[in-house]
Amino acid sequence: MTLHIQNPLDMHLHLREGAMLDSVLPFTAKAFSAALAMPNLKTPITTTALALEYKKQILESSTKSNCKDFTPLMSIYLTQSLDKDELEKAQANGIRILKLYPKGATTGSENGVSEILDNKTLEIFALAEKLGFILSIHGESNGFCMDREFEFLEVFKHIATSFPKLRIIIEHMSDRRSLEAIESYENLYATLTLHHISMNLDDVCGGMLNPHHFCKPMLKTKKDQQALLHSALNAHPKISFGSDSAPHLESVKLSSKGAAGIFSAPVLLPALAQLFEEHNKLENLQAFVSDRAFEIYGLDSKNIPQKSVKLVRESSKVPSNINIPLDNMGDIVPLFADKILQWRLD
Amino acid sequence: MTLHIQNPLDMHLHLREGAMLDSVLPFTAKAFSAALAMPNLKTPITTTALALEYKKQILESSTKSNCKDFTPLMSIYLTQSLDKDELEKAQANGIRILKLYPKGATTGSENGVSEILDNKTLEIFALAEKLGFILSIHGESNGFCMDREFEFLEVFKHIATSFPKLRIIIEHMSDRRSLEAIESYENLYATLTLHHISMNLDDVCGGMLNPHHFCKPMLKTKKDQQALLHSALNAHPKISFGSDSAPHLESVKLSSKGAAGIFSAPVLLPALAQLFEEHNKLENLQAFVSDRAFEIYGLDSKNIPQKSVKLVRESSKVPSNINIPLDNMGDIVPLFADKILQWRLD
Repeated sequence: MTLHIQNPLDMHLHLREGAMLDSVLPFTAKAFSAALAMPNLKTPITTTALALEYKKQILESSTKSNCKDFTPLMSIYLTQSLDKDELEKAQANGIRILKLYPKGATTGSENGVSEILDNKTLEIFALAEKLGFILSIHGESNGFCMDREFEFLEVFKHIATSFPKLRIIIEHMSDRRSLEAIESYENLYATLTLHHISMNLDDVCGGMLNPHHFCKPMLKTKKDQQALLHSALNAHPKISFGSDSAPHLESVKLSSKGAAGIFSAPVLLPALAQLFEEHNKLENLQAFVSDRAFEIYGLDSKNIPQKSVKLVRESSKVPSNINIPLDNMGDIVPLFADKILQWRLD
Repeated sequence: MTLHIQNPLDMHLHLREGAMLDSVLPFTAKAFSAALAMPNLKTPITTTALALEYKKQILESSTKSNCKDFTPLMSIYLTQSLDKDELEKAQANGIRILKLYPKGATTGSENGVSEILDNKTLEIFALAEKLGFILSIHGESNGFCMDREFEFLEVFKHIATSFPKLRIIIEHMSDRRSLEAIESYENLYATLTLHHISMNLDDVCGGMLNPHHFCKPMLKTKKDQQALLHSALNAHPKISFGSDSAPHLESVKLSSKGAAGIFSAPVLLPALAQLFEEHNKLENLQAFVSDRAFEIYGLDSKNIPQKSVKLVRESSKVPSNINIPLDNMGDIVPLFADKILQWRLD
């Protein structure tokens, strides 16, 4: 059995730079038409110039790995230095997504915004609305880990109400209560990862501790997982797929200060096909991993090279680790390492 | 400032065997009068003969480390092979505590009971009640990690009602709903650890992942921590102190299958003194770490050598790690490693 997916899109992806970029990009570039590259690099992508330079790096890397039919979609890290000129420059260069990190919420959020609803930030939101930007937010409070996304919903609701024409994305939605929010607020949307629909907190610490399943936002309860899975299986009209795949070296994951992030890029489409097939919803996979993003982000298919990705229903084993070929860097352990998946990329 | 605690007791302690026993015992033997040694060794302590042999090992180890004024209290691992003869033998040898592990609930529970409420187990409970044993239970269901103790309360309530003269202990209580249970059922009691009253899930995975704070039962919410802390600070009449201190090598903690357990033995009394002092409850520390256990377990102070432990209010640094001096064993990282505590043992 085979399955063809037209223009699969990953709307939330961490590609990093240098040797790490070269090692992880091929997994996405082979399987997806386009992916939204997150801007939280060591030097955050806070301007159009930096975004265009990063786009060039990504394209060079994809050429090196013979994946020329891949389009990186760029985003700009929202800081209080953003102004009208910079936003207009971004717009003129086809960049339409601003990414907001509350300061300290996750890996690479040190440069994030500490006062989200102060005048300066609200001014940027107003400009963003006027210029047709999309505002993507890592929405977590600094409260108790299992309640952070829920507590942050008040901020989402406030922005959604104040800027009714601004499209706002709840990134990597993890809490079932966020589903109610996107259903109640017209201009509120979400992205959803593979890991938040296939796992819950038990997969981190229900048995032995598994640092490879540790991510932000934390995996939540079984009820949250089930509600989010249901929305994915039914290709909820306000949700796009965004993997939040994030490579961290094994040595950094297995430490007394383990890094948050799950490297799912090597397994995304096969694992999603398996999950959708198990629930007799394969017919909705195309909408979940592609159509919804075109609709929600208003993407123009003319700007994205047409690509049909073929999946074959044959079992294949997920590698134990991915070696990063740079002195002393070591390995990255992918999600579902050593497991057998029922589908593989052709 | 100094503080003298009479006969401090640790009613839940993992001492292990061999080189590990020799390395970890001194921390407890110097600070406590007596401690209840858990029976979940590689060869579980399922009989009186094994318990007496283990007691001998512990006493030899404490002699080696010049801690002669320490009394190990022994428990027997409850399996379905226990019978009247064996229970009478235990009783004749002064062993009064049976420890029940639901199969698979934690480290060393592989030999535990899979059917807790079947006829054979109920028969053992009836004998235990008749002979005046105390039944200590690691009470967790096999459900979602944050609900396991709560779900198991039904089993506690069933046993408490069926055997009204049997004293039953909810070991290492972690959920505030268990407090309501011990308050509602006359013969239901609990032990409480230092880590469940001083930390919550955020200390495991609220920032970076900290495997050294991973334990079973999982640390719960801030509300749970606060309710349990309140009961400790007020020396709740149905709660004894039991550290559940459990040594695991650093290499076993920092792995893709990290072991559950917190090694708190090196810091217990100083950290408790600091916590009680911070909440202006130092006057209740004696009751929490000693008097309550004497009352609840009906311990005879004649059988426990009198010991006054002196704490001095001087800051001291918790060691980064404790080396286990056996080829290739490596280090154990104690709770609060590298932190400064405001009290120290004299």
